[in-house]
Amino acid sequence: MMQTSAATASYRMSLAQIVRRGRQLRGDAPALIDDDATISWAQFADRIARLAAGFRALGLQDNDRVAMLSDNSARFIEACFATPWAGGVFTPLNHRLSAEEIVAILRDCGARILIADATFAHLAEAVAADVALDHIVSATPGAPSRQGWTAYDSLIEQCAPADDAGRCGDDLAALFYTSGSTGQPKGVMHSHANILAAGFGVVPAYGLDEESVALISGPLFHVGAMGLAIPTLMAAGALSILPRFDAARVLERIETHHVTITAGVPTMMRMLLEHPECRRRDLSSLRRVPFGGAPMPPALLAQLLDVMPKARFLHSYGMTETVSSCSSLPDVWLRPERATRGKAQSIGRALLGVEISIRDPQDNDVAAGVVGEIVVRGPCVTQGYWNKPAATAQTLRGGWLHTGDLGRLDEDGFLYIVDRLKDMIITGGENVYSTEVEDVIYAYPGVSQCAVIGVPDARWGEAVHAIVAARDGADIDPDALIAHCRARIAHYKCPRTIEMRREPLPLSGANKINKPALRAPFWKDRQGALV
Amino acid sequence: MMQTSAATASYRMSLAQIVRRGRQLRGDAPALIDDDATISWAQFADRIARLAAGFRALGLQDNDRVAMLSDNSARFIEACFATPWAGGVFTPLNHRLSAEEIVAILRDCGARILIADATFAHLAEAVAADVALDHIVSATPGAPSRQGWTAYDSLIEQCAPADDAGRCGDDLAALFYTSGSTGQPKGVMHSHANILAAGFGVVPAYGLDEESVALISGPLFHVGAMGLAIPTLMAAGALSILPRFDAARVLERIETHHVTITAGVPTMMRMLLEHPECRRRDLSSLRRVPFGGAPMPPALLAQLLDVMPKARFLHSYGMTETVSSCSSLPDVWLRPERATRGKAQSIGRALLGVEISIRDPQDNDVAAGVVGEIVVRGPCVTQGYWNKPAATAQTLRGGWLHTGDLGRLDEDGFLYIVDRLKDMIITGGENVYSTEVEDVIYAYPGVSQCAVIGVPDARWGEAVHAIVAARDGADIDPDALIAHCRARIAHYKCPRTIEMRREPLPLSGANKINKPALRAPFWKDRQGALV
Repeated sequence: MMQTSAATASYRMSLAQIVRRGRQLRGDAPALIDDDATISWAQFADRIARLAAGFRALGLQDNDRVAMLSDNSARFIEACFATPWAGGVFTPLNHRLSAEEIVAILRDCGARILIADATFAHLAEAVAADVALDHIVSATPGAPSRQGWTAYDSLIEQCAPADDAGRCGDDLAALFYTSGSTGQPKGVMHSHANILAAGFGVVPAYGLDEESVALISGPLFHVGAMGLAIPTLMAAGALSILPRFDAARVLERIETHHVTITAGVPTMMRMLLEHPECRRRDLSSLRRVPFGGAPMPPALLAQLLDVMPKARFLHSYGMTETVSSCSSLPDVWLRPERATRGKAQSIGRALLGVEISIRDPQDNDVAAGVVGEIVVRGPCVTQGYWNKPAATAQTLRGGWLHTGDLGRLDEDGFLYIVDRLKDMIITGGENVYSTEVEDVIYAYPGVSQCAVIGVPDARWGEAVHAIVAARDGADIDPDALIAHCRARIAHYKCPRTIEMRREPLPLSGANKINKPALRAPFWKDRQGALV
Repeated sequence: MMQTSAATASYRMSLAQIVRRGRQLRGDAPALIDDDATISWAQFADRIARLAAGFRALGLQDNDRVAMLSDNSARFIEACFATPWAGGVFTPLNHRLSAEEIVAILRDCGARILIADATFAHLAEAVAADVALDHIVSATPGAPSRQGWTAYDSLIEQCAPADDAGRCGDDLAALFYTSGSTGQPKGVMHSHANILAAGFGVVPAYGLDEESVALISGPLFHVGAMGLAIPTLMAAGALSILPRFDAARVLERIETHHVTITAGVPTMMRMLLEHPECRRRDLSSLRRVPFGGAPMPPALLAQLLDVMPKARFLHSYGMTETVSSCSSLPDVWLRPERATRGKAQSIGRALLGVEISIRDPQDNDVAAGVVGEIVVRGPCVTQGYWNKPAATAQTLRGGWLHTGDLGRLDEDGFLYIVDRLKDMIITGGENVYSTEVEDVIYAYPGVSQCAVIGVPDARWGEAVHAIVAARDGADIDPDALIAHCRARIAHYKCPRTIEMRREPLPLSGANKINKPALRAPFWKDRQGALV
């Protein structure tokens, strides 16, 4: 006997459901707060249904891409929900890229509508000269930034609310371009189901509920911020949105909006801690601080716990290809009574709905404790890269996402990041994990930032090189720093050369230290360079 | 430009992932505890992979049904996971049904493999005489209960672990036959995605995590118990499984296994409360008690809170067609400081991933506060009824599950159940909600159980009739009880007749009072009877 009842009536996951449920549960409560407005859930639902109608009036068809070039704002979130509501695919752009790089992305995704705020009107104008766009929507309140641009407000005012287009499940909802520096922009495809599934793992892991207020200060064109924003809205909570990261404003917002959760990378957390306002603000509303992107030096974590005693710091791990976090370490493992269990350096265990494994170079699972490439599987994992079937097949071979990160799993399923596969240095046949060396350098007095990279070496293939920025006023002697390393880790792991810098190290779109950029000058004349 | 990268590599939700993740996170910790054994997550994963291989060796093909007729046991859960691991569809049977009714279900679903424990060997044997089965697997440890039956243990011992069949997403994983008494068995189809999606809503609502221990005492052939068991396993928690509900054993298990959560219907909760062991056992481990199936009389809730002070009682709402709960009232709404908000009688709000609305008889949404049929949409909602396209189309019309329950939503999205559509009595053109009348009767001293039903009446169409069971020793005067009602609710709502019973009222498979059975004798000679 065959299954004869077709699944015609089955309703799959969609971003539209998040909006409708939020409106039903929290109609009068704030959904979005930014510098311009406080938008209730009822207003949010109404505005995106109107904005979606506006996009359709501008010619948007199912699966068309809508790009956005803007600082963070309530409108960024509205566009993120209105685009799939209208049937489209939201494509946020990294505004730190050059006009040329943005043109390459717009050509790759084929967006015909671009939303730009006043801050990036100049960049949008430069881009528009080189790419075929039907419409530029001016996202900043008031009159359009440029002649010929469409006012966002007029779309909302002039259009009646549209029903959602009914896209769901495996239908595409967003494209997030990776900040990788291989030259080729890669659009990571997020389906409705991918985004919801990621949220189903994150909501319980971060303790999100309708009383959550998430401060968004990292850039919304990156999953680091969007991967907190969407799960918070799934839980019917509220977002307090800053245009961009600013330590003083973050501290002020936590106090004034009673922020319960904010996410960051260690670089940002350090800036908060070093800001003079840090100890003057009431940060007691803060309950959870998921962090990731780079390991948090233990000394920094201890200082943070000192100023935010009620916050639980959750070391989390994820990437654009998993939409949001796919592992997270509950803070109980940082408590003194569990310290002997040795889990504090882990990035936690697979979240609800996620499978994690470790593979050797032949793609076989390795035993507990053995270092290999981290692979991830589950409904949050992307379908692949937009228009890149070869890269998709390579990254998703065997149905598992190959992350390019090196790590190990212990006997209890705790995951430990060892290094980026590309950041691992091979010197004289030995593997050196850059992060291990960096941890030792960070423990040296006066170090503000450091990056350990492999540079060409005629004898050893690669040599370990450290680039170090000192804190204001600190004077670091490179030889003394090398001696500090030699006292703590194996000789072959220690930097052979150290370069001191006065200015901060360059950051990537995700606010991580941009190692590919630091490596590039050393390798630029070589083939197959690891940048 | 079209989307050109196919979703071939995308991995959807599956029950197999629950098992693999649980093994990775909690390999040595218990997954299942019953009267026969404690089974660790590593053992559970190994046993179901072997059992699945055994099913394939018995001839199971993809999408084939495996039926089970058994009291609760660890093996019940193993079979529930091993069947979809092998590619099949797990079909638990209500052992309270007659052989004839079970035969009708087996014919409807076409199962060729039946698993039966020793308790129901006799029933299985009777059934096997009338239906074509290839194999009967004897679930009780040791030698098979009957000659010719296959030993469950030998399947596990003799088969090497199989890889999971790779079914996921919309593929069917289970069929749950409803306990409705329309005569026609209806198999509710649960896909892998339905089951996982339901769990994603339940896990945060019930606060499930890897330290949860759920006591399963309700029958696992019903979603009331299975809808707690599977989300607990998703969270990598453990199940303490009783063969069937027994108040003394429930109380003992809570103490000895440090049970953190158990679910029940008010009838079961009352039996716990009235048991002499109730105040002698340490029930302090109990943190959550989701309940549903029928409204909990406020007086009963108050008594329960007295003996289980750390437990949070969560009034939850769900049905076979939603796999598990689709709404739940967080206990904060029962606290005195929120009592004025008037939410305590609600069954809560839509869980994560669920949409709920209220419809008039023309299937239009009604305004807040207006009573109508409760409709539900979301990825947890069934694809429909096995081999019943007409019933499927009717129940899922417009993509929404029509629950047959009457309710209303308030301005804040809280749902209130008014009655079963079929339990509503129409007398002289007025709607009478049976539960409203029952609440008044339950408040009368000495009442243990009651059911208010409509009976044929020549003048009014239907008349309100109450069937009441008194507590031991209580002597209730029907006239005084009618007078009690008239003092509290409108005359037309009050019972015109009351029937006192000495024996307990009949219960359905879900331990609810079986109103269709009570109504049947009154309506048996009429066409279109509401039974």
